[in-house]
Amino acid sequence: MSLVITGTMAFDALETPFGKVDRIIGGSATYAAWAASAVYNNIKQVSIVGYDFPQEEFDLLAKRGVSFEGVEVKKDEKSFFWSGRYHADMNTRDTLVTDLNVLASFDPQLPESYQDCSYLMLGNLVPAVQQSVISQFKNRPKLIIMDTMNFWMEVAMDALKETMKMVDLIVLNDAEARQLTEEYSLVKAAQKIRAMGPKYVVIKKGEHGALLFHEDKVFSAPALPLEDVYDPTGAGDTFAGGFIGHIARADDFSFETMKTAVIMGSVMASFCVEKFGPERMKEITTEDIQGRLKQFKALCTFNDVLEVV
Amino acid sequence: MSLVITGTMAFDALETPFGKVDRIIGGSATYAAWAASAVYNNIKQVSIVGYDFPQEEFDLLAKRGVSFEGVEVKKDEKSFFWSGRYHADMNTRDTLVTDLNVLASFDPQLPESYQDCSYLMLGNLVPAVQQSVISQFKNRPKLIIMDTMNFWMEVAMDALKETMKMVDLIVLNDAEARQLTEEYSLVKAAQKIRAMGPKYVVIKKGEHGALLFHEDKVFSAPALPLEDVYDPTGAGDTFAGGFIGHIARADDFSFETMKTAVIMGSVMASFCVEKFGPERMKEITTEDIQGRLKQFKALCTFNDVLEVV
Repeated sequence: MSLVITGTMAFDALETPFGKVDRIIGGSATYAAWAASAVYNNIKQVSIVGYDFPQEEFDLLAKRGVSFEGVEVKKDEKSFFWSGRYHADMNTRDTLVTDLNVLASFDPQLPESYQDCSYLMLGNLVPAVQQSVISQFKNRPKLIIMDTMNFWMEVAMDALKETMKMVDLIVLNDAEARQLTEEYSLVKAAQKIRAMGPKYVVIKKGEHGALLFHEDKVFSAPALPLEDVYDPTGAGDTFAGGFIGHIARADDFSFETMKTAVIMGSVMASFCVEKFGPERMKEITTEDIQGRLKQFKALCTFNDVLEVV
Repeated sequence: MSLVITGTMAFDALETPFGKVDRIIGGSATYAAWAASAVYNNIKQVSIVGYDFPQEEFDLLAKRGVSFEGVEVKKDEKSFFWSGRYHADMNTRDTLVTDLNVLASFDPQLPESYQDCSYLMLGNLVPAVQQSVISQFKNRPKLIIMDTMNFWMEVAMDALKETMKMVDLIVLNDAEARQLTEEYSLVKAAQKIRAMGPKYVVIKKGEHGALLFHEDKVFSAPALPLEDVYDPTGAGDTFAGGFIGHIARADDFSFETMKTAVIMGSVMASFCVEKFGPERMKEITTEDIQGRLKQFKALCTFNDVLEVV
């Protein structure tokens, strides 16, 4: 049994009110792998990089149980590069540069060794590539989750809708949920999204936490109130990685387990934003994670309310 | 022992994407009294109305244990009137008309019978009037909470800061907390607000719930995810009324009780927005409240997360 994660492994350049970095490791699959490998250690990546992606980054993740047979290395091209500038509220950003590089011709070939996959996470990526990965499994994984972003709604909506029909759960943020459904109410948006395919919908709300919808059930997870968010890049991928890592570890996806998976995703995201890039994810210990799980529990647990008059 | 509530009792005209009402009962003390009287029934109002305020509205609240000796009725003037139009997101609105009328000369005289007050809620009102009410108590109430709004930050910031020094708890929304402190992070904003006087800070975040801060403790309450918000008018006053009503009923303001009070406030606000004006508050039964308390519990309760690897 394994967890397969597909997405980008890339470089980012970032500007936030707290500083600027010119070239830092990034990518949806990178962040997801760092988060998932904090709680589960049989992870198989599907991605593509260029000659410039450091071997050291693979080595660090390999030590945590992440394997890379499904990662293509193009010796004559550069890795995907994204550059962005965050506004003061940290919730909105401008994309400055998008150099597809290796991503332009990404046609993933699933290694035979990946066929033991029980849980599949499709990180943010071209919807057609997400579909290609799903279709290469001889047996459908037990649970398929996908992330996406507004960009694909603008340039590949039909393909995105096709991918949505093939998955069990979609993770997206509140603005994306509203854009996809043209509904302001997130309850109505989630209903419409479930009618498009995924039985489960997770709507991330940044500093306001996340909502999980399934049938007539809803779960609301808080975000940890933080003094400063240094860099929100990758927080969504990190959330998704923590979420699916927890489910793979539990080997269960009952609604109760999904609720705790949302908390685990939120815990991981709360670390991610504390430093630039995935740096903070590389430092955290089991004790750090357990401490923060306790903080989340204290944050939103309350006694039964007295009977009313 | 009683709960004293001061604030406006007024008329509103409203436009939301769901409809329009030309003249409906409103006012911060009206909404707060409807919410508080759902859980506590020795409430004493301090307010002012004109000749046009319907006796029936007093009678309905009187049946729920609200008394009006401290409400001045001006026979030759009109009640306060506010008119506003909500934008599609329901979080922002334009004020169309503000007719102060009786409010222009409001100089509350606290009846002797109000001196048994244990809990005092200063609803949204001129900060100087809030101070006048506090100063008329021979013995300081056990807990004084205040609400306010951005308008007073613009026209009466010094007086607002004076009131803040006299209270134990302030309730305000996220935009107001940011405006008051010039801090985007709500954690930092709450720290600065506590340094200005109130030991407890409640920041309301509309559809994203509310945060309670005290010393190094934080509690995050969700909002009930709703399909539609018909009219958000008075939701903040209703929240505050449910909050202080619960505390008066428990006659306790430990942090644990405050947490459940935030939930009670959220429950009341979730009813308030379901219809125009305070109409929904007039209908709800004890069973409705208990049912919604259960919904809140289910919404944010999760099992202990498995020990991590």
